[in-house]
Amino acid sequence: MAVYTNVDDTALGTFLEAYDLGTVLSFAGIAEGVENSNYLLRTDRAHYILTLYEKRVERSDLPFFIEVMEVLAKSGLTCPLPVPARDGTILQELAGRPCAVFTFLDGTWSRYPNREKCAELGRTLAHMHLNCAPVTRRRANALGPDAWRSLLGSIGDRADVVGDGMKDAIRDRLDTILTGWPSGLPTGVIHADLFPNNVLFIGDRLTGVIDFYFACDDILAYDLGICMNSWCFEPDGSFNLTKSRAMLKGYQSVRPLSEAETEAIPILAAGSAMRFFLTRLYDWIHTPADALVSPKDPMEYWGILRFHQSVSGTTAYGIGL
Amino acid sequence: MAVYTNVDDTALGTFLEAYDLGTVLSFAGIAEGVENSNYLLRTDRAHYILTLYEKRVERSDLPFFIEVMEVLAKSGLTCPLPVPARDGTILQELAGRPCAVFTFLDGTWSRYPNREKCAELGRTLAHMHLNCAPVTRRRANALGPDAWRSLLGSIGDRADVVGDGMKDAIRDRLDTILTGWPSGLPTGVIHADLFPNNVLFIGDRLTGVIDFYFACDDILAYDLGICMNSWCFEPDGSFNLTKSRAMLKGYQSVRPLSEAETEAIPILAAGSAMRFFLTRLYDWIHTPADALVSPKDPMEYWGILRFHQSVSGTTAYGIGL
Repeated sequence: MAVYTNVDDTALGTFLEAYDLGTVLSFAGIAEGVENSNYLLRTDRAHYILTLYEKRVERSDLPFFIEVMEVLAKSGLTCPLPVPARDGTILQELAGRPCAVFTFLDGTWSRYPNREKCAELGRTLAHMHLNCAPVTRRRANALGPDAWRSLLGSIGDRADVVGDGMKDAIRDRLDTILTGWPSGLPTGVIHADLFPNNVLFIGDRLTGVIDFYFACDDILAYDLGICMNSWCFEPDGSFNLTKSRAMLKGYQSVRPLSEAETEAIPILAAGSAMRFFLTRLYDWIHTPADALVSPKDPMEYWGILRFHQSVSGTTAYGIGL
Repeated sequence: MAVYTNVDDTALGTFLEAYDLGTVLSFAGIAEGVENSNYLLRTDRAHYILTLYEKRVERSDLPFFIEVMEVLAKSGLTCPLPVPARDGTILQELAGRPCAVFTFLDGTWSRYPNREKCAELGRTLAHMHLNCAPVTRRRANALGPDAWRSLLGSIGDRADVVGDGMKDAIRDRLDTILTGWPSGLPTGVIHADLFPNNVLFIGDRLTGVIDFYFACDDILAYDLGICMNSWCFEPDGSFNLTKSRAMLKGYQSVRPLSEAETEAIPILAAGSAMRFFLTRLYDWIHTPADALVSPKDPMEYWGILRFHQSVSGTTAYGIGL
């Protein structure tokens, strides 16, 4: 739920003089995204999204995110295309924030995507990985394995709020993951936050991938782990093998995984579960009790983590089935 | 900034089966309104607003609000038209809340409306007052003069947080207003909250009046007082006579004020200032310091109140000029 910065009609009018977007018909802050302020802008020509970048996004990262979206949109992938001002620049300033205008994508997101949607997502993810090749800028994964120990350190003894002995249990599981973390796997630009709320559909047709503000360079198959965790577990915490199989099959129909990548799936998925568990636990501890936005329960991801550390092989994910 | 209730795709899909609105293209919570949750729903046929009524709105009042909007929209006034489900009913239930679907109105609101917009607003307000005549339901003004003493009572000694001696000063000014409050003036349905953010324009053409959730039966000219206070004061607190004159002239070009109504303008405007001062002061005192929505400064309305209690006659508002 996010509109942190208010933009009034005078400021909007002045801002839009730098663009060639047509006459404004409506303008409304929307409650999507938690890092930035997003406005839906409708003109007599098209729908646009105006994003104002708030403090949590590093300004120096913006050119990377913009380049990723531009490269992907121009490659034919359905993601927001940055719309330049008349002078050709994309990043502008409004209400004291950096901002940019993007094309608007139709579609709605699905809280529990079905098998067909999982297959679509798999295919699209593979296309994203391949189509990002021309991206020239680089961005390290600020929430990758190198960050997990210090994240756990900043949580410290307070980890025990989610259960007695959790601090030690987390450290043990983290040690196992970091010790076995693979090297030498194919890397490239990953989305790194491709949860269902960032993928739009009309019916079962995928119409949009949004929110590239965690995108970074990392192991490509790690992105698959993130998607499996957020798309293939049921509300009761159980793993849906049919959905996972559909997603992996969809992915491999476009970009086949190497044997090393396939074998690394369990640990990459466990690492992804650890990443979201730790950031959720951090937010859980640091959100005031009366905040309007309630933090997500970290224990959902603890269950997912335990699943991945308990599987005996990649057939558990539907690979080779 | 309001989306208090989340509606997922499954719940939305089931809900929309009861309607004939076309295929959903997009669905987004919007950050307008503070009492309810509002979603912008776009289908292949039109744009709609889906409103979920939260706790602060009395369920028993909903039929009145719906009737007002229906009567006004059908009279040709640009306000949201409630869209019935296939079975003809307007009030439905979704996510445990009463809700309704409305047509979407184009336009954006203006933080500091110019003279032309003030004139447009005056004309539209008069049309609203006349066109509401067929409304059969009644609703007393829950925040009218009868409520102000108990509102001040619930604030009590804490009134002094906005200034030493304010508690007594408020009581004195309230006494003056209530003693002189007029009777026998024409009454009818008033909007009662027609601030600039509830009126949409494209250019200087008024394209929509929204948010009827304070509408009630009261003195018609009191509605004018509310509009003068929220449209005709400049950011520095000064009163803009040119805007007020344009608004009153616009109003009277459609519905001329009687002599008694004209003479009552200063006290009605002072009463309106008192109403918003008191509710803002109440919110100021009761909002936690770390809440995401910051309360509006009540002292803006204290200055407006003092202005109305200091004017020597109705020429101060541009009447007869």
